[in-house]
Amino acid sequence: MRLSRGRGDSAEGLNTKFTKTRYMSTPPDVEEEGVSVSSGAVVYEVAPDCTREDIEVGELYGAEVNGVVDYGVFVDLSSSLSGLVHESELDESYGVGDGLVVRLIEERDNGDLGFAAVDVDLSDHPTETRRHAYETTDVSDLDAARGETVSIKGDVVRIEQTGGPTVFRVRDGSGIVPCAAFEAAGVRAYPDVEIDDVVRVVGVPERRDEGIQIEVDSLSRPDGEEAEAVTSGLEAALTDRAAPHDVDPLIDWDALDTLRPGLGEVATLLRRAVLDGRPIRIRHHADGDGMCASLPTQLALENFAERVYDDPSVTQHMIKRLPSKAPFYEMEDVVRDLNYALGNRDRHGQRMPFFLMLDNGSTEEDVPAYRTLAEYDVPIAVVDHHHPDPDAVGPLLDAHVNPYLEGEDYAVTTGMCCVELARMIDPDLTNDLRHVPAVAGLSDRSDAEAMTDYLNLAEEAGYDEGHLRDIGEALDYAAFWLRYNDGRHLVDDLLDLGGDGDRHRELISLLAARAERDVKRQLDATLRHTETDELANGARCVRIDLEDYAHRFTYPPPGKTTGKIHDRTVAEYGEPVITIGYGPDFAVLRSDGVRLDIPRTVTELTDELPGAGVSGGGHLVVGSIKFMAGKRETVLDRLIEKLGEADLDEELGSAAVAGFED
Amino acid sequence: MRLSRGRGDSAEGLNTKFTKTRYMSTPPDVEEEGVSVSSGAVVYEVAPDCTREDIEVGELYGAEVNGVVDYGVFVDLSSSLSGLVHESELDESYGVGDGLVVRLIEERDNGDLGFAAVDVDLSDHPTETRRHAYETTDVSDLDAARGETVSIKGDVVRIEQTGGPTVFRVRDGSGIVPCAAFEAAGVRAYPDVEIDDVVRVVGVPERRDEGIQIEVDSLSRPDGEEAEAVTSGLEAALTDRAAPHDVDPLIDWDALDTLRPGLGEVATLLRRAVLDGRPIRIRHHADGDGMCASLPTQLALENFAERVYDDPSVTQHMIKRLPSKAPFYEMEDVVRDLNYALGNRDRHGQRMPFFLMLDNGSTEEDVPAYRTLAEYDVPIAVVDHHHPDPDAVGPLLDAHVNPYLEGEDYAVTTGMCCVELARMIDPDLTNDLRHVPAVAGLSDRSDAEAMTDYLNLAEEAGYDEGHLRDIGEALDYAAFWLRYNDGRHLVDDLLDLGGDGDRHRELISLLAARAERDVKRQLDATLRHTETDELANGARCVRIDLEDYAHRFTYPPPGKTTGKIHDRTVAEYGEPVITIGYGPDFAVLRSDGVRLDIPRTVTELTDELPGAGVSGGGHLVVGSIKFMAGKRETVLDRLIEKLGEADLDEELGSAAVAGFED
Amino acid sequence: MRLSRGRGDSAEGLNTKFTKTRYMSTPPDVEEEGVSVSSGAVVYEVAPDCTREDIEVGELYGAEVNGVVDYGVFVDLSSSLSGLVHESELDESYGVGDGLVVRLIEERDNGDLGFAAVDVDLSDHPTETRRHAYETTDVSDLDAARGETVSIKGDVVRIEQTGGPTVFRVRDGSGIVPCAAFEAAGVRAYPDVEIDDVVRVVGVPERRDEGIQIEVDSLSRPDGEEAEAVTSGLEAALTDRAAPHDVDPLIDWDALDTLRPGLGEVATLLRRAVLDGRPIRIRHHADGDGMCASLPTQLALENFAERVYDDPSVTQHMIKRLPSKAPFYEMEDVVRDLNYALGNRDRHGQRMPFFLMLDNGSTEEDVPAYRTLAEYDVPIAVVDHHHPDPDAVGPLLDAHVNPYLEGEDYAVTTGMCCVELARMIDPDLTNDLRHVPAVAGLSDRSDAEAMTDYLNLAEEAGYDEGHLRDIGEALDYAAFWLRYNDGRHLVDDLLDLGGDGDRHRELISLLAARAERDVKRQLDATLRHTETDELANGARCVRIDLEDYAHRFTYPPPGKTTGKIHDRTVAEYGEPVITIGYGPDFAVLRSDGVRLDIPRTVTELTDELPGAGVSGGGHLVVGSIKFMAGKRETVLDRLIEKLGEADLDEELGSAAVAGFED
Repeated sequence: MRLSRGRGDSAEGLNTKFTKTRYMSTPPDVEEEGVSVSSGAVVYEVAPDCTREDIEVGELYGAEVNGVVDYGVFVDLSSSLSGLVHESELDESYGVGDGLVVRLIEERDNGDLGFAAVDVDLSDHPTETRRHAYETTDVSDLDAARGETVSIKGDVVRIEQTGGPTVFRVRDGSGIVPCAAFEAAGVRAYPDVEIDDVVRVVGVPERRDEGIQIEVDSLSRPDGEEAEAVTSGLEAALTDRAAPHDVDPLIDWDALDTLRPGLGEVATLLRRAVLDGRPIRIRHHADGDGMCASLPTQLALENFAERVYDDPSVTQHMIKRLPSKAPFYEMEDVVRDLNYALGNRDRHGQRMPFFLMLDNGSTEEDVPAYRTLAEYDVPIAVVDHHHPDPDAVGPLLDAHVNPYLEGEDYAVTTGMCCVELARMIDPDLTNDLRHVPAVAGLSDRSDAEAMTDYLNLAEEAGYDEGHLRDIGEALDYAAFWLRYNDGRHLVDDLLDLGGDGDRHRELISLLAARAERDVKRQLDATLRHTETDELANGARCVRIDLEDYAHRFTYPPPGKTTGKIHDRTVAEYGEPVITIGYGPDFAVLRSDGVRLDIPRTVTELTDELPGAGVSGGGHLVVGSIKFMAGKRETVLDRLIEKLGEADLDEELGSAAVAGFED
Repeated sequence: MRLSRGRGDSAEGLNTKFTKTRYMSTPPDVEEEGVSVSSGAVVYEVAPDCTREDIEVGELYGAEVNGVVDYGVFVDLSSSLSGLVHESELDESYGVGDGLVVRLIEERDNGDLGFAAVDVDLSDHPTETRRHAYETTDVSDLDAARGETVSIKGDVVRIEQTGGPTVFRVRDGSGIVPCAAFEAAGVRAYPDVEIDDVVRVVGVPERRDEGIQIEVDSLSRPDGEEAEAVTSGLEAALTDRAAPHDVDPLIDWDALDTLRPGLGEVATLLRRAVLDGRPIRIRHHADGDGMCASLPTQLALENFAERVYDDPSVTQHMIKRLPSKAPFYEMEDVVRDLNYALGNRDRHGQRMPFFLMLDNGSTEEDVPAYRTLAEYDVPIAVVDHHHPDPDAVGPLLDAHVNPYLEGEDYAVTTGMCCVELARMIDPDLTNDLRHVPAVAGLSDRSDAEAMTDYLNLAEEAGYDEGHLRDIGEALDYAAFWLRYNDGRHLVDDLLDLGGDGDRHRELISLLAARAERDVKRQLDATLRHTETDELANGARCVRIDLEDYAHRFTYPPPGKTTGKIHDRTVAEYGEPVITIGYGPDFAVLRSDGVRLDIPRTVTELTDELPGAGVSGGGHLVVGSIKFMAGKRETVLDRLIEKLGEADLDEELGSAAVAGFED
Repeated sequence: MRLSRGRGDSAEGLNTKFTKTRYMSTPPDVEEEGVSVSSGAVVYEVAPDCTREDIEVGELYGAEVNGVVDYGVFVDLSSSLSGLVHESELDESYGVGDGLVVRLIEERDNGDLGFAAVDVDLSDHPTETRRHAYETTDVSDLDAARGETVSIKGDVVRIEQTGGPTVFRVRDGSGIVPCAAFEAAGVRAYPDVEIDDVVRVVGVPERRDEGIQIEVDSLSRPDGEEAEAVTSGLEAALTDRAAPHDVDPLIDWDALDTLRPGLGEVATLLRRAVLDGRPIRIRHHADGDGMCASLPTQLALENFAERVYDDPSVTQHMIKRLPSKAPFYEMEDVVRDLNYALGNRDRHGQRMPFFLMLDNGSTEEDVPAYRTLAEYDVPIAVVDHHHPDPDAVGPLLDAHVNPYLEGEDYAVTTGMCCVELARMIDPDLTNDLRHVPAVAGLSDRSDAEAMTDYLNLAEEAGYDEGHLRDIGEALDYAAFWLRYNDGRHLVDDLLDLGGDGDRHRELISLLAARAERDVKRQLDATLRHTETDELANGARCVRIDLEDYAHRFTYPPPGKTTGKIHDRTVAEYGEPVITIGYGPDFAVLRSDGVRLDIPRTVTELTDELPGAGVSGGGHLVVGSIKFMAGKRETVLDRLIEKLGEADLDEELGSAAVAGFED
């Protein structure tokens, strides 16, 4: 049969004359003759890049007559594959330009192809495009294949529509590469392809300013079986690559060991996020321990991302660190973080980020923020040593590491945990981090016995205890002035991560001295105005009006000021001491040698003083309280009365006040 | 005559040997001979891209001898047009390289050109460049002409000097295209060409990452007549394209109908701004109604701009939404907006923006800001339902839509108006916006009868009244935490504009519950501390000290807190009620059932209490007052006294407090 | 001897067959024969771009046989240099591809090269690459050499690693050019090359969007002697180019003349910073004088940078102006400035910036900030007229210009100094700046006799005194609302620097009127609440509680409010007057006709009132004091007592309060 053919040539250069007519099928009453065709056999349209290796004797192809000779007709399967249909294999006559279906019946040694015309009812025959079977190239090998046509297989991790091409970032087990496909300026190419689809990209890797990019010739979604093979291969490769490094802990410590499986899980989630092209946002408490936790983690993730992407601009946008003043995730922060993430998704086709909460994020106060994130399927992990509300936050988290969940306490600081976390992500950091757990421990007043080992470890690395304390003070001081700025470059130097050691020391000595001078000035001002009572239980209670008698809006802030007054009092008079720094509508508490339960006290005050608007909490013996300015006297009087009813206990002390210093 | 000729070749490739000598004219005493030349005939310099179609028998051309033969000389008009001057048409001898003026005397069928040398006194003959008469291509058709030389005509809407080329954005009736002209790195090309000039650009459209760009071969300003034709054609096309869509209003409502001509005018101004390449800045009140007004308008303008520019990066920079906490345009905001706009003008050659004020901008308090903008010829339009001062702002505005100007009142909210405005700009949005007027009305407590229709419309679209109220509360809550951030992506989801419906519902239920919980907490705290008096007129007066007895710096803020206390009081005791929430130097007023005139009361207090620094205002029965902290008691006492003198009127109530809640 | 050779071809295209084998040397017992080779002679590998001019008879070269003929072998030194080794010059036989060392023995007139094979022990012969001796092109001439291979010499001022090439900015005496070297995507090319290294770059200048860029073929560090020649030539050229212009001062004034050498020094430092590719950050007091100082300086530096770089985007990033509210460099500002600079260094390879402090930066309060910057080797210069602590800041500064250091006083305002500074940097600005010193003087109430000359100068330029005062008020007003924004474009118009004169006048009249209205409103409010006493010394003492009786958070702020009350009082009652505006924890002082020494008074109060937290200072007769809110009464009482003990002196007055108005 002769097929009536349309004209035209598609953007992809396929043999579309053939395609477009979809083989206007012969009427059912025409008998097939000469060549037997099994109904259901696929008819292939041959793409122009196909070679003889891509076709096979016995298969059916769409073809177009390009020449008529005495002994038959010459046909093109594509611009590069042609052959003869001998007259013996024809049952009617054709003219140049006619379309027909042929079966390949012979490939001669000299390369000539021989076909037979077949008469098919196309409603019985699916048509498919036969593409050149490029060998699949690994993304990590593209640099060597620049300028050649290659094929890669993987899944799509990001789709960005530019004013020109659509850029698909395609990932295989070895890396991720941007693939630029142009339909028309600003028009989405391959609109059916979505994030997470498995695709096969044929194109030419070219060097661009930002690295290697594939100029796409074709992008297709493999069929079920092939796609599954890609997915499972990819999953295996990614699982393998996401696995944390098996590093020995810096010191032997049972308390920390119980947390290592959880940290490994967090490391896996984070490495996998990097491999998935998912941005990571580290929200951390802006104090010494919080920085000892977040800086190494950020560094480790950046190093890993640089190895995966080979593109510094990607790393920079992928990992961001966001300091929080409060020890929980404030609504104000989450609406902004979320909106920013949504903007990146819309404008740059980024996935929603992975949120990692450090030294932060364990309590009921975080729930509204987490719930909001949950609406957008944002994964969240927490590493923290503040007293947790696991029932409240647990269901909302992908991972939660907290010493209290393992029967340990605040003495295992977040910084100690995250140094191990960072090493699981990038073990090469080990040597740079040996002093960091000690800084974290001193900053958060960890009374762990392991502190001796950490101090020794730091000592071996060249940091004596005085210097470590100074680092903590300098970090605190810098964090205060940096406010919501991550201060990346400055704090890296302060914590001595990969910078100039001499400058680190000069800078620490400078800022620690400034911090000390400001603390001294604050103590000079405040100590004269403290009021001291002996409570019913014999504890010394020191009160200071921070609004009237402290320097405000400067370092040290109210929480730290209260802590310093407390420390001075304990040093002078010994335990038991309770110190209360108060402003118009808040009070900060520190205690040593008294068995307080501040969360319970707050609950009682809330109940006993309706309308006083009491809220707050914290650790058992250290915390903060908010109340209505108009009820300050009432609240403070009742608070002090309650504090005087507590038992004395010389084991208890004002450590881990990290969350309440500001 | 033989012309003495210089050497050289211009960047444009014109026959400049000829040009540069400007035909050193023969001495006046030399007689013309053989060929008669009418004085004043133009001598053309032929550009290299000219073809035979561009020259005409009888015209004069500058030429250069490129060969001498026995029977005459061969001459070049350009690198691509040559011909013979037969010896019979020569009256002196020439050598290769000599310049002369010739007349085209014959075009043979075989393509040969025959010229005659003419002897001209150039002071009598203007010279002009003859360029190839490219057919003018529409900007919207450039994509199809990539790689070919084309000509476009239009006006210049932006000129950006890069470190490389100068980029002129040229607009015709069909679109706008960047045209890159290179003089030298960072040097302004065609320095005489300014914004708004009509130009003809010859060049090659190429695809760039950001879309189509023309690489300029030449850019010229057509002469008067041609320019006028372009201008009037362009003006007609733009006027046509700027015209708003003629959409039927969502509901039948006379009050809104009176505003539709004005809204059409604003739609025209906005569409024209987009067509003119002028950025649009939407300053809106950051509350529920303000967002119901500004989000649809932003979306409609973005859709329109995308159709005009085909370049997402342009759209993104062109339309920006800026929330304002105050219900007027603060000096702080205008100096920043203005400076930002001036920076964009200087750095990116952008026009000054069009300012659209929504739910905002009708009062005398806006005048200083408007006057400042006026210095820079910044156009401003207002759509608002706050009580206007048309005498003050009218002369400064390009358009002012406000129900009070048409004898209507606040019940026609800005959101209701702007849904119609958005539909006039992009009618395809209609289906997405059917619930928005109801949200706007509920948020601003519109008592319009049309609310029934709007609620029904929303109901049909799947939003029941409870959910609409929740949307309003959630918008308010999110706006509070977003502060000066436009929160684009989050609030689109909250208002359910084009996002995921399920997520919208989850998110609304989450945030509305948070808002409700916070309101409850605030009421629990404050209600115990209200002081209640019966005023002389029998109204119940409720006072609350917000500084001492309300949670501060959290949601709900003072204005909303006062409103909630008021609502609760009315619900419990019925009208008449006046509620006053006060801080150290301000008071917020809400009333129901009392015929207040707060603006007049403020004026009286200002006069009666000199030195108390009283200012403020608002609606008749709802408003806010500022005063000196040191005079609070005096001001409040006198205020309450005056409130007690007002007549009761059960028709009046605390609606439309949008401007005073924060 | 025949050398056994490896295969391969390096990225640089050098004759590496030769290189890689390093001429596996013959065993020591093989005698050299026929050709005498002095031990130690260099064997050159010839780069492919070498021509005959680059080789010399008598030298030794690595070669490869490319053909064998009866009479000898043809050898390649490179892909473009070949010649014959006659059989008479061979002592063994070679095959195509063999490597050997040859000596050039003849260059015939027809261009043929004749070589002799030599047998060398390579351990005695260093090998070097012989590169083509390009003539060195000046960076300023690169535009004309686009597309050709050129060589430049200079030092590296910036190294930026992109995701693609590494970009070295190389400077010679004539300019700076980016040189892009590609190793692999995102991999640092030439990792040994650092900032400040002297380099020779061979490559091809190409035009990029941002200007000319060299695509690097090779980048090398010249040896000692050549490097020294480059360095000293460069240093001479830069020193020459950095030298300030020798401009005549705008007026004759001895007091200013004493500062001119210092200003010349600052001009040199700044011009040199531009030439060194070092960013400049101008931290200036955000008041009238501070803006009169910083705007002209910024403009002059931008003009100079544009001449040096020919790239507007460079200029924009290089010069930034940062307003400071406080008259000293706050810790909060320095940690952010520093972190920002470190980020630019890391991300964009920028040098650390040069900090120029204007109307700011002379006192002990600046020391912590300066010390912090010093850790990062950040150069700092100060031009200021606040009373300096030269002992404290001197050692930390690269230059310090201050009238007090020359026996002059505040009457020489910073704006007056910086107009001369700006003219030394760019004398073409002279005509635009003639009114600026008068504005500076009026803003800071300079009582210099030279003010008459400055006012005349401004008058000649078309600015009368009333308008100049209005400019000062408008600048103050705008600075208040701009807060930390530099307001570049707006304030340029306010100061009439290069903008539209008509708009300047309209804008000034608008903003000055707004400022005046706001001042009047503030005076109306406050004047009724002042308390007036006659002090022991007979001075009139006016006190105002700014917390309770002034409009807050609006213009005019507390300092300016106090000043206006003071001026009004002096105008009404005459001297002596002391005015104290106080808030909860601060007081602002103004005085006329009293010999105060505020710094000494503060010191005394600090000593006498321990725990009152008194700090502060300022000028002798104008200043501000901070204290604990709880000790306000005590401090103010004692302060007033002390003020009453001061001698009267009608010469002294409240000028130069610039630092204390906010």
